[in-house]
Amino acid sequence: MRGKSDGIRASPLGPGRQSSHVTRMTEFSRSVLARCDALAALTETPGMITRTYLTDQHAAANRLVGGWMAEAGMTVAVDGAGSVTGRIEGTGADPQTVIIGSHLDSVRNAGRYDGILGVVLGISVVDAIVRSGRRLPFAIEVVGFGEEEGVRFGTSLIGSRALAGTFRPEWLRLKDEAGISLSKALREFGLDPAAVAGTARSPGSVKAYLEAHIEQGPVLESLSLPVGVVSAICGATRRRFRVAGTAGHAGTVPMDQRRAALAGAAEMGLAIERIAGTAGIVGTVGRLSVHPDAVNVIPGDVVFTLDLRAERDHDRITALADIDDALDAIANRRRLAVERETFHESPSVPCDPALRRVLEDAITAGGVAPHTLPSGAGHDAMAIAPLAPVAMLFIRCAGGISHNPAEQVMAADIDVAGTILADTVFRLADIPR
Amino acid sequence: MRGKSDGIRASPLGPGRQSSHVTRMTEFSRSVLARCDALAALTETPGMITRTYLTDQHAAANRLVGGWMAEAGMTVAVDGAGSVTGRIEGTGADPQTVIIGSHLDSVRNAGRYDGILGVVLGISVVDAIVRSGRRLPFAIEVVGFGEEEGVRFGTSLIGSRALAGTFRPEWLRLKDEAGISLSKALREFGLDPAAVAGTARSPGSVKAYLEAHIEQGPVLESLSLPVGVVSAICGATRRRFRVAGTAGHAGTVPMDQRRAALAGAAEMGLAIERIAGTAGIVGTVGRLSVHPDAVNVIPGDVVFTLDLRAERDHDRITALADIDDALDAIANRRRLAVERETFHESPSVPCDPALRRVLEDAITAGGVAPHTLPSGAGHDAMAIAPLAPVAMLFIRCAGGISHNPAEQVMAADIDVAGTILADTVFRLADIPR
Repeated sequence: MRGKSDGIRASPLGPGRQSSHVTRMTEFSRSVLARCDALAALTETPGMITRTYLTDQHAAANRLVGGWMAEAGMTVAVDGAGSVTGRIEGTGADPQTVIIGSHLDSVRNAGRYDGILGVVLGISVVDAIVRSGRRLPFAIEVVGFGEEEGVRFGTSLIGSRALAGTFRPEWLRLKDEAGISLSKALREFGLDPAAVAGTARSPGSVKAYLEAHIEQGPVLESLSLPVGVVSAICGATRRRFRVAGTAGHAGTVPMDQRRAALAGAAEMGLAIERIAGTAGIVGTVGRLSVHPDAVNVIPGDVVFTLDLRAERDHDRITALADIDDALDAIANRRRLAVERETFHESPSVPCDPALRRVLEDAITAGGVAPHTLPSGAGHDAMAIAPLAPVAMLFIRCAGGISHNPAEQVMAADIDVAGTILADTVFRLADIPR
Repeated sequence: MRGKSDGIRASPLGPGRQSSHVTRMTEFSRSVLARCDALAALTETPGMITRTYLTDQHAAANRLVGGWMAEAGMTVAVDGAGSVTGRIEGTGADPQTVIIGSHLDSVRNAGRYDGILGVVLGISVVDAIVRSGRRLPFAIEVVGFGEEEGVRFGTSLIGSRALAGTFRPEWLRLKDEAGISLSKALREFGLDPAAVAGTARSPGSVKAYLEAHIEQGPVLESLSLPVGVVSAICGATRRRFRVAGTAGHAGTVPMDQRRAALAGAAEMGLAIERIAGTAGIVGTVGRLSVHPDAVNVIPGDVVFTLDLRAERDHDRITALADIDDALDAIANRRRLAVERETFHESPSVPCDPALRRVLEDAITAGGVAPHTLPSGAGHDAMAIAPLAPVAMLFIRCAGGISHNPAEQVMAADIDVAGTILADTVFRLADIPR
């Protein structure tokens, strides 16, 4: 892609923004990366990055980000759910607002880009737009959400759901590990718990929600692409399976007289792998525990989890039925009992087709092949989807690694993403309301 | 087998010893079962059976068992390793000794027959022999060993190894969970740690060692046989495998781009099951742990154990090589790394062929088909094998369950086993030294 930098050179970010090598870092990507580093320093745990919702570190992050927003000429506020927002008014020709957003909270021992990059990049894009001198017909905002990860209160997307109007008042009673309720944490953050629901944007007020985020997967890297367009945020089913056989002495029970729970679970795990692979979706056994878990005892009970995700709900539901059939057949053949319990189920959230096309056009104009891929991970965009058209730009990350200190992005990719995002906003200006 | 009770009726235990049903319990089996119950009451843990080596409960068990030995006319002693012994002198025509033994210690939350039954049955058999009025050319002893299970000091077969002359002085420094050394525990038990090694029997002094033990497996039950003859105590290899792949987000890494450690381990476990089954031996994955063990993370590391046992060492070594090849092939295909570490290796201990034949003849005379099977579990007999010819009589147990409060034996089988053991001793009297 680097040879096609002409498109980038002619970008709205102005001359000199192209970057053929990481070492030839532009001021744009240098600033974005430095700001991600600055945010990484705001951590609850020395030596690692942990910044959870409504903590002192969250407040500090809001102040830091708010400062950058103000530097870019934006009007800064913190909304009822603690999300920091920066706004630039438009000409008024279009009363709607375009939002660029992502989140500022992190998992424990996180990397420095998941969520953060999307917010910081949004600010730099708005800064570049302002510097370009071109007035937009609509207002543009950048939002840094909190509790996207759900680390502190166990419920994810709280900031973006509040903005979208799907915040549930009963969440105010959720408690963190220290027993502090969301209600109390909001008050300690200087917010009124009764006002969270009222922070929602009016239906129809948001023209488009754009979110840039690291891919968190290896697809773009394997295709040598700096960015990609998200087709949909995958639907997911999470199940717990319990396989019951008979525990026995490892030395005394002949192989053909065993009701071996772990061997059965192994066969089930491979069936899940095969069925998901054939269906072109993803299925993962992430947890597995063995009882009694002794070297010389045939396990009598195994509990494992399945996390099944698909861009199309139909594919997921069909694969789940195939998995059920396969597991029953394995259990019957091996004289095992298998119990299942679904503890999470969420439908697929497609991105807006029209907005996706605008983003794809901007990618093409940026000299990059517009590759489309589903998002296996959840994002604030899925919470915003009921309120407004959403589109997501994935940015290549090293080895597909995320939620880990080893998260890495390339400066050149940040330049490409910035160019594309700015161009997308300009293209939206040309679309009548 | 019940229809063939004629052989049992004509048994050395005298008339009326046959038992066609559990409900028609003879005085012989009634006494044996009652004594097992009495020993079960000597426990460190109220509500369950736990009697470990050199505890007060072990001392109480020795006193109780010693009392039964004395009632049977035996001279009672406790040897240097804390094993209780009862002895009846013979005519002196044969200066060797025949020993019937097993162990009095238990695992935690044990059943009431593993080990115990062999000691109690031995006493009742000697009692029956004494009552028969027939003098034997050799002395006969019953021994109740300690620390067969290795629960307290982590080293098994201490009592029987002391008798066999393979006790290692460095074991005196072994410590239990409370930090008490074996040396100190022996002193507290009233024994001299320096004298343990001297408790060994002289080479050539033991004519035969006979051990009756519950099978701890389901084979005799599945064949509807009350007893069986042990061919050998299986050799064993225990290995720890570590399978390393790459942890990743369960939603974002396509199936074909994963280095999935758990799916690899599952395939390896099934290969172990298949190879052991084909070889006619037993292979068990008893422990398995997954890292990071989160619902939405592809496991990057899996550690599991293999317990492989075979009657013939050649079969075990060949199967191990096949397993190594299979695991390497799976690891290569899945781009996983696999590390292995052997942490236990013990050769097969065959029972003495001549002594086995005597036992088989007694079984046949008792009207039972003499079925031969390997012992997948370790027994005191394997420690005695370097000192003397050993043979083992397995007694059917319900569901093959052992090391569990649910251990069960049938009274009728105890009568059969008693008859056979007594007959075996008489047959040994007819074999010249």
